[in-house]
Amino acid sequence: MKSSKNKIVNDPVWGFIELDSDLHLEIIEHPYFQRLRRIKQLGLSSLVYPSANHTRFEHAIGTMHLVRSALDVLKKKGNKITEEEEEGVMAALLLHDIGHGPFSHALEQSIVQGISHEELSCVYMDELNRKMDGRLSLAIEIFLNLYPKRFLHQLVSSQLDMDRLDFLKRDSFFSGVSEGVVSSERIIKMLHIQHDQLVVEVKGIYSIEKFLIARRLMYWQVYLHKTVISAEHMMIKLLQRASNLASAGVNVPATGYLALFLNKEIKADDFRSNDLTIRNRALHHFGYLDDADILCSIKGWMQHPDPVLSNLSRAIIDRNLFKIKLSKTPFSESKLINLKEQAIKKFGVSMEEAAFFVIDGKITNSAYDEEAENIYILYKNGKLKDIKEASDINLEGLTKTVRKHFVCYPVEIITR
Amino acid sequence: MKSSKNKIVNDPVWGFIELDSDLHLEIIEHPYFQRLRRIKQLGLSSLVYPSANHTRFEHAIGTMHLVRSALDVLKKKGNKITEEEEEGVMAALLLHDIGHGPFSHALEQSIVQGISHEELSCVYMDELNRKMDGRLSLAIEIFLNLYPKRFLHQLVSSQLDMDRLDFLKRDSFFSGVSEGVVSSERIIKMLHIQHDQLVVEVKGIYSIEKFLIARRLMYWQVYLHKTVISAEHMMIKLLQRASNLASAGVNVPATGYLALFLNKEIKADDFRSNDLTIRNRALHHFGYLDDADILCSIKGWMQHPDPVLSNLSRAIIDRNLFKIKLSKTPFSESKLINLKEQAIKKFGVSMEEAAFFVIDGKITNSAYDEEAENIYILYKNGKLKDIKEASDINLEGLTKTVRKHFVCYPVEIITR
Amino acid sequence: MKSSKNKIVNDPVWGFIELDSDLHLEIIEHPYFQRLRRIKQLGLSSLVYPSANHTRFEHAIGTMHLVRSALDVLKKKGNKITEEEEEGVMAALLLHDIGHGPFSHALEQSIVQGISHEELSCVYMDELNRKMDGRLSLAIEIFLNLYPKRFLHQLVSSQLDMDRLDFLKRDSFFSGVSEGVVSSERIIKMLHIQHDQLVVEVKGIYSIEKFLIARRLMYWQVYLHKTVISAEHMMIKLLQRASNLASAGVNVPATGYLALFLNKEIKADDFRSNDLTIRNRALHHFGYLDDADILCSIKGWMQHPDPVLSNLSRAIIDRNLFKIKLSKTPFSESKLINLKEQAIKKFGVSMEEAAFFVIDGKITNSAYDEEAENIYILYKNGKLKDIKEASDINLEGLTKTVRKHFVCYPVEIITR
Amino acid sequence: MKSSKNKIVNDPVWGFIELDSDLHLEIIEHPYFQRLRRIKQLGLSSLVYPSANHTRFEHAIGTMHLVRSALDVLKKKGNKITEEEEEGVMAALLLHDIGHGPFSHALEQSIVQGISHEELSCVYMDELNRKMDGRLSLAIEIFLNLYPKRFLHQLVSSQLDMDRLDFLKRDSFFSGVSEGVVSSERIIKMLHIQHDQLVVEVKGIYSIEKFLIARRLMYWQVYLHKTVISAEHMMIKLLQRASNLASAGVNVPATGYLALFLNKEIKADDFRSNDLTIRNRALHHFGYLDDADILCSIKGWMQHPDPVLSNLSRAIIDRNLFKIKLSKTPFSESKLINLKEQAIKKFGVSMEEAAFFVIDGKITNSAYDEEAENIYILYKNGKLKDIKEASDINLEGLTKTVRKHFVCYPVEIITR
Repeated sequence: MKSSKNKIVNDPVWGFIELDSDLHLEIIEHPYFQRLRRIKQLGLSSLVYPSANHTRFEHAIGTMHLVRSALDVLKKKGNKITEEEEEGVMAALLLHDIGHGPFSHALEQSIVQGISHEELSCVYMDELNRKMDGRLSLAIEIFLNLYPKRFLHQLVSSQLDMDRLDFLKRDSFFSGVSEGVVSSERIIKMLHIQHDQLVVEVKGIYSIEKFLIARRLMYWQVYLHKTVISAEHMMIKLLQRASNLASAGVNVPATGYLALFLNKEIKADDFRSNDLTIRNRALHHFGYLDDADILCSIKGWMQHPDPVLSNLSRAIIDRNLFKIKLSKTPFSESKLINLKEQAIKKFGVSMEEAAFFVIDGKITNSAYDEEAENIYILYKNGKLKDIKEASDINLEGLTKTVRKHFVCYPVEIITR
Repeated sequence: MKSSKNKIVNDPVWGFIELDSDLHLEIIEHPYFQRLRRIKQLGLSSLVYPSANHTRFEHAIGTMHLVRSALDVLKKKGNKITEEEEEGVMAALLLHDIGHGPFSHALEQSIVQGISHEELSCVYMDELNRKMDGRLSLAIEIFLNLYPKRFLHQLVSSQLDMDRLDFLKRDSFFSGVSEGVVSSERIIKMLHIQHDQLVVEVKGIYSIEKFLIARRLMYWQVYLHKTVISAEHMMIKLLQRASNLASAGVNVPATGYLALFLNKEIKADDFRSNDLTIRNRALHHFGYLDDADILCSIKGWMQHPDPVLSNLSRAIIDRNLFKIKLSKTPFSESKLINLKEQAIKKFGVSMEEAAFFVIDGKITNSAYDEEAENIYILYKNGKLKDIKEASDINLEGLTKTVRKHFVCYPVEIITR
Repeated sequence: MKSSKNKIVNDPVWGFIELDSDLHLEIIEHPYFQRLRRIKQLGLSSLVYPSANHTRFEHAIGTMHLVRSALDVLKKKGNKITEEEEEGVMAALLLHDIGHGPFSHALEQSIVQGISHEELSCVYMDELNRKMDGRLSLAIEIFLNLYPKRFLHQLVSSQLDMDRLDFLKRDSFFSGVSEGVVSSERIIKMLHIQHDQLVVEVKGIYSIEKFLIARRLMYWQVYLHKTVISAEHMMIKLLQRASNLASAGVNVPATGYLALFLNKEIKADDFRSNDLTIRNRALHHFGYLDDADILCSIKGWMQHPDPVLSNLSRAIIDRNLFKIKLSKTPFSESKLINLKEQAIKKFGVSMEEAAFFVIDGKITNSAYDEEAENIYILYKNGKLKDIKEASDINLEGLTKTVRKHFVCYPVEIITR
Repeated sequence: MKSSKNKIVNDPVWGFIELDSDLHLEIIEHPYFQRLRRIKQLGLSSLVYPSANHTRFEHAIGTMHLVRSALDVLKKKGNKITEEEEEGVMAALLLHDIGHGPFSHALEQSIVQGISHEELSCVYMDELNRKMDGRLSLAIEIFLNLYPKRFLHQLVSSQLDMDRLDFLKRDSFFSGVSEGVVSSERIIKMLHIQHDQLVVEVKGIYSIEKFLIARRLMYWQVYLHKTVISAEHMMIKLLQRASNLASAGVNVPATGYLALFLNKEIKADDFRSNDLTIRNRALHHFGYLDDADILCSIKGWMQHPDPVLSNLSRAIIDRNLFKIKLSKTPFSESKLINLKEQAIKKFGVSMEEAAFFVIDGKITNSAYDEEAENIYILYKNGKLKDIKEASDINLEGLTKTVRKHFVCYPVEIITR
């Protein structure tokens, strides 16, 4: 795993990170990976936490760094891991988010529909593997959970994967929400393997409880912060409007890379095409699409004749974010109609268009803890217990799905 | 200075920052200020320090926060400062960088020539003052050093201004160069006023020495890091080429806001025009120009028929940065010619165009310490001494101008 | 509240702490307060966490610092607090632990029986108040919850008092158990007063949950760490033995200040005496008793002819701590007898004396959360809810009393 | 180097420190090493920096931890180091300060004269080596610079040894003087070996400059802080007085371990005796002498009939430290006489005794930088340069000996 060029990355979160494998350097230097420098990890959250400008690039490298520590710990405890496996799992982590586009969540619901970032990650990995003469095959097997040693996959994707251990700490660090800080190093020290499964030694039990609480705190304080929710749904509606208009033949100018997707010159199926030319064209262009394309295009739309497009664009760029209300029960139809009528009056739009100004929906934290069951605690006698049983405290609240309904609308709308 | 809406900004560097003045909130909410969210403080440095993605927005708010602490300290020591002066100097700090464009240094030497960011800051302040019915007049007087209490200006601009105390700490924090950390809070605790001048109490002397050393370290490790120098000069050459081609009538597509400047539809003098329509048009458009415009335009140029434009564009976007050599003496003409001949062969360009691939110049750290003389130490008997005299150590080395010559060129060029 | 001498204390936990009141300086400079420098906050915990050597002195000053921040926050939110009240509540916090002796818990169960550190604190406050001509009267009223504004007392003693907000953070900091870190500053920002009661604004709800979890983690990881429990019970037994021997007329040499208590020349009732000479003699001597007295006396006992005294002394000083076993159910009588028989054989002691080598008991975390009910969350509509109801998660586990039985005995004992 | 018991120490400065060698565990568990828990690293500095209560125990373990990192770095760069050498140099660092007594500096000038802590360290190492059947021989060779690979000794003792890299950071951390923070990890990453010599790679040059400045700052701000100087000289005088009185036959009660040295029952030469019984008796008793003995004895002396002894004792315990004046030139004889006359009047002592109340002397920082010449910078071409030449700044000021004269006397003395 040695390399001629030993490079060091300065990371404010983890300190010096060494890049000492040619394979990893080759991945990092590839334009598809470099592009992650131009995609913020938290998208529009920086409108609420202005320092949260960290990118998917640092995160990917951070996860690679953490897994190296984890592997060292596991090896010290007598678990066998070969050098190839080590290089492979590190590569898998470097690449785990390679398919993310700018403002992923919004993009997938509008301009780049029909293919998820997870699927895109796989396509990019395959293509890179082809270019690198199969040297990523092991990494891909681990990523896809096809490799016999299942615990290696769990380091990449599970309740305690390096992805979470990096992003929770990193997002907390850059947003300044210091309470979200997770003792990732401590948890890593407590990892072990039992029956080919990643587990946590019993003395790490409090750290795991703290991890679960911190994770929950980050969800409500950052990821599901109500102003962030508002901004993200404005973005979804804005990109949907742009997409609709373009489909309807209206001229919606955009930067070069975005235009190809907006005008359906590249479609989801192109990424799955057996024709390498078609597939690589799609990969190439998506591979240069980044936050700047979205922002520049939106800035251009601020003067667009369509009032929906221009108003939403100005609202995002100038940060006149919609007011948001939360409720445990859905908002009544009459309340929504009432708001839409105000929007019609205020912006001179149709009832149909008013739905772009009065956005309702629901948020749920379920995504992240549905499976909270499978963190296993390893006792000194070799027995395993699910954290929920092992813990003295009732963790149900942490794993229960919380649903909240919301409605966002411009502050200019007077509510009666 | 009270406000109805007490807002808090989460800053990873200084913690919670309160925004409790309507005046300050009005400034911050203005689109001209919001735009600073989209301009990185350190431009291309993130190509070397990947986490250095912090923006001029956070920096501006950070300086406002520091000056509040400084004013508290000064008042506690018996110096009279009115509430209006407090609000004014805080506003001056919020606005001190308002005229910065994206990649300022490069832009001023290429597409937006003929007006400095300092002059632009003044024009923006004037315009905002007009819009805000003169409520910024005191801030502007302090900023321009026209206000009788000179020490207030020194908080905004001097060897120990809040600008430096914020950016050194912030740049060090986000780049992960922890050695650059300056104890800004400690220095602020030691500030005092003597003869209408900002001075440092004698027990702060070691902190000042440390500040000078840390500043120097940040210069060589970050601001003048050789790879950063290479990237910045590539950017200058690239934008100059774009500008030249546009002037020569070649079609150089760019995003909307950049195009106006590239095609000289807006010129430096417009910002100075007495015709408000002309001036405000210039301010408006420059007021939406940001990092994304530059990046998107460059991405578009990767396919441009001009080999200079396309090669430099690809090199920056894909991070194939030029190799850089430093030397205490200038590089010989023959060495440079030799390199250019290689470039001609490699890229099929003319000798004139080769100057865009073989970039020589000199860097100097003088900008920051020429005037290092004027940090004054206040002794218990009321006497002042220049830090250079007051310090036991020889600070000349820190204040001496260091000049280094450099030459950058593509790695593909084989040097004999 | 101004003082001629503005002093600053460097605190690694909170940064610079200003001492700007003559009243506070006078308290701090008194020998009774200075003595806290020689009493470790965590007693024997440093045998497990070697850096946990912080003293009650720093803690007391830390709580004073925090309450100043809390008062600033409360005043900013419109709550009226006079300067006298401010000075008073700060003084109350400085003095809240003034009655603590060295290794308090162990001392109170052995050599200084019959008076608790809480009662002692009151006696010291009274005496200092007398010496300071009644200038502490307000502080004492607040401390004793006799002052009309009850929320001031809650800052000194309640589920969210400054005592906890300081010690949890401080103990976590110095022990290096970084997961115990509580965002005390954040919680303080969220404090408010409603119906003369200290409450937390609703947006602080996650911080409170995190605080409860961190507190629990600190209990099990530090305060009730099993090796710490073992060390503390060895200390209790050791001091009880010394006390028993002295009462029985055996010569048990000790340092001067300890000897007075060991030989019952000063008794608990002396602190309550109406005869000022007697009371002040007791206060004076207890006021110079510190960790060093206990350690030196124990070192002297390492050679004592009594095998119980000498063995326990050597075990503590050389850190040959007893092995400890925990169990959810009590240990059986036969198990304990068996262990004692081993001790009799090993140390040549009687069955009665064997109880000093085989120590059983139970620990419970109830002390700290029984009353967890009374943290109130303030909603925007002015309503209050108990945190247990307000939180989405089930906090019962955090407030439930956990009981564990333990038995400690020398490692030299072979268990069958 | 593997051990059956893998132990972890929680260190707030460096995080988790693993103890994974039986040899190291055996050293640490020995009473001679455990005693370091009871000796503060910075002696009386905690009277100025109240949190500076860290002990020689944590420091010793910290240096061991750092050298493990350094060895990893050096091995990665291709330098050969065997496992035995690794274990040896780590043991050497664990033991490098084993001979320190409580308040070493003061003790060596008073009660334990005639043998330095350096010599004592060697004697203790020899004795431990004997007990451990020669398993420390390699560690001792390295410590004494008798081992062929000289760079190993430089890790233990040189301008860049692990001792400094730990104590500067640790002292800065616990005192809260955050400006003294040294980037020890960064420096360690830059270490290399050239011609069997420890050197620093050229890119570490700014870190070294910063290290030199931080070291200087720590000297003046902490180690030579004027109030610390005053306290330390009061302690020297106090212990000298106790020693003088004891020699003159006056009864000076002290704790058991101190009494043996005070009454000359153990003398310096006993440590050098060829008679093992005599030597081990000395080692044994010195091996239980700690801070607590000094403090308890002083507390006892507060009531001693000798006014010098009692006054100095009370002044230290109650922290009524002497006022201190500094000057670049020596204080005049007449000034000193004048002060002594005041002392005679105030304390009813003789002129000779007045010298215990009016203490003059000089301090110098030379000890730490005389040899600053020998930090070598390694250039890419393999050449070495002394840091003084390699640095752009003039480091002479940092290496120049600064001498300051001081006089301390009780505040009660009125100066005319």
